[in-house]
Amino acid sequence: MEQLNFDTVILGGGPAGLSAAIYASRGAVSTAIVDINMLGGQPSNYLELENYPGFQIVGGYDLMEKFEQHADKFGVHKYPLQEIERVDLKNKIVKTKEYEFKAATIIIATGAQPMKLGVPGEKEFVGRGVSYCAVCDGAFYKNKVVVVVGGGNAAVEEAMYLTKFADKIYVIHRRNELRADRIIQDRAFKNEKIEFIWDSVVKEIKGDNLVNTVVLENVKTKEIFNLQADGVFPYIGMTPNVEFFTGQLEQDSRGFIVTDDVMATSVVGVFAVGDVRTTPLRQVITAASDGAVGAVYAVKYIESNKEAVSA
Amino acid sequence: MEQLNFDTVILGGGPAGLSAAIYASRGAVSTAIVDINMLGGQPSNYLELENYPGFQIVGGYDLMEKFEQHADKFGVHKYPLQEIERVDLKNKIVKTKEYEFKAATIIIATGAQPMKLGVPGEKEFVGRGVSYCAVCDGAFYKNKVVVVVGGGNAAVEEAMYLTKFADKIYVIHRRNELRADRIIQDRAFKNEKIEFIWDSVVKEIKGDNLVNTVVLENVKTKEIFNLQADGVFPYIGMTPNVEFFTGQLEQDSRGFIVTDDVMATSVVGVFAVGDVRTTPLRQVITAASDGAVGAVYAVKYIESNKEAVSA
Repeated sequence: MEQLNFDTVILGGGPAGLSAAIYASRGAVSTAIVDINMLGGQPSNYLELENYPGFQIVGGYDLMEKFEQHADKFGVHKYPLQEIERVDLKNKIVKTKEYEFKAATIIIATGAQPMKLGVPGEKEFVGRGVSYCAVCDGAFYKNKVVVVVGGGNAAVEEAMYLTKFADKIYVIHRRNELRADRIIQDRAFKNEKIEFIWDSVVKEIKGDNLVNTVVLENVKTKEIFNLQADGVFPYIGMTPNVEFFTGQLEQDSRGFIVTDDVMATSVVGVFAVGDVRTTPLRQVITAASDGAVGAVYAVKYIESNKEAVSA
Repeated sequence: MEQLNFDTVILGGGPAGLSAAIYASRGAVSTAIVDINMLGGQPSNYLELENYPGFQIVGGYDLMEKFEQHADKFGVHKYPLQEIERVDLKNKIVKTKEYEFKAATIIIATGAQPMKLGVPGEKEFVGRGVSYCAVCDGAFYKNKVVVVVGGGNAAVEEAMYLTKFADKIYVIHRRNELRADRIIQDRAFKNEKIEFIWDSVVKEIKGDNLVNTVVLENVKTKEIFNLQADGVFPYIGMTPNVEFFTGQLEQDSRGFIVTDDVMATSVVGVFAVGDVRTTPLRQVITAASDGAVGAVYAVKYIESNKEAVSA
């Protein structure tokens, strides 16, 4: 078990974590970034982004590679593909299968992930008809029929994306109007491949080896009906990646980490940035901003702590 | 007097305003951006930035041009070089010499500016040794000698921050004690790289291509003396650009506009983003994030208002 000491250990290598790495390492504190996957986070799976200011259109993977190279420039130490065993926030220890990291500050940037429908068949058919990433799996549904579940921007945008492959996309929404932005709605309503099924929820996902049927319920009439479909893409919301932290610090009712305006959590010396925290908007630009703020205040915290120790 | 109607009028064309323009116009609401200067804001004057995530090094002007082109792509209406006469936040009216803008929402992004020393050489050497942002420019002063002017928390914290890079930091203060918090003072007094020069003010900044000398005066003895230095960081305060708003909405004791976490001000339908608001960090990335958040919530406000009107 190799022991490693850093001024700051950043957990998570998406836009928030990489931006924190840029600001912390540029702030001349020794900085490690640890991820269970390769660095890049969620945007790495996005075909393209058109709303990170400064880039009119950029591939998600390309943008995250630029973030990573930017952090590299200031000498961040990178630990991708780590199997995390334990995180002790109070004592600032992160234990992975290979290393024990000891830090003066921890910056949590583990992000959030799609919420599950929680219906029979969902888990069983993941990778065989159930997918949470249209960009990743859309190409498998060429000339097929797919179902997207949800009514927000993500749901409608992914439905639009799937029109590149599938012949028919049903968008299932529990209400009779979308939450998505007007421009996104307008585009979707104009697309002939997309059909909306309102006031309905998924009750079950069925199939043989692969998905072939989605069982729906109309929440108003309680009518149950079947839809023949080859794929199901749930886009019903996000849940934070907090399994190693829950119980150690203040979280909101959905589990997101509560911070103040400098990204400090309820544990002294621990900051949370990006999608994992309670925040009014989850975008690459907001995550990157969080990372900058959290890192600058982590650096200030480290400086004051050093003085206190040497006093 | 031409009358113009928009869903949202953004005041200020720096990173916060341009990001708001990107998000608002992509949100399919009609958007105008109004500035007293050309668009681009403060960063347009920075030689280079190395901390906007995704761009390892970029000219300030170039980055702001990319922001502007990004906003152009979504069809924002631009009104640079406007002589503003009056802003009525409650009624959402912006009157310039040429136009009267009427809007459903106003997004204030007018920024802030460092208070100036007002001495010869200060203006001439901006970007060539004079900087108002240690976090932005500190890394350029590795192994150099720098001068920080001021005695408040910001001055002393920035001096501490600069110890990571510079070999020697002189803090010049007009009094014989600091205004900074005791804990911050104590840290600074213990730091061997920092030397305080009391009862003194900067009279002139001199150099060739770059700054090399700071001329000081002891205010008690009236003695004039020179200090060899490569950089000067005045930290005598920031002041928000709020002359057209003061008295119309809630501001903090220094005049910065108070917002909630979605950037809403105390006036319904008016948002404030970027340096002009009370915020823990003033960077391009944080301003751009504010703009995104403010615009998304302005669009939501417009949509809900439309619903209310049509109901």
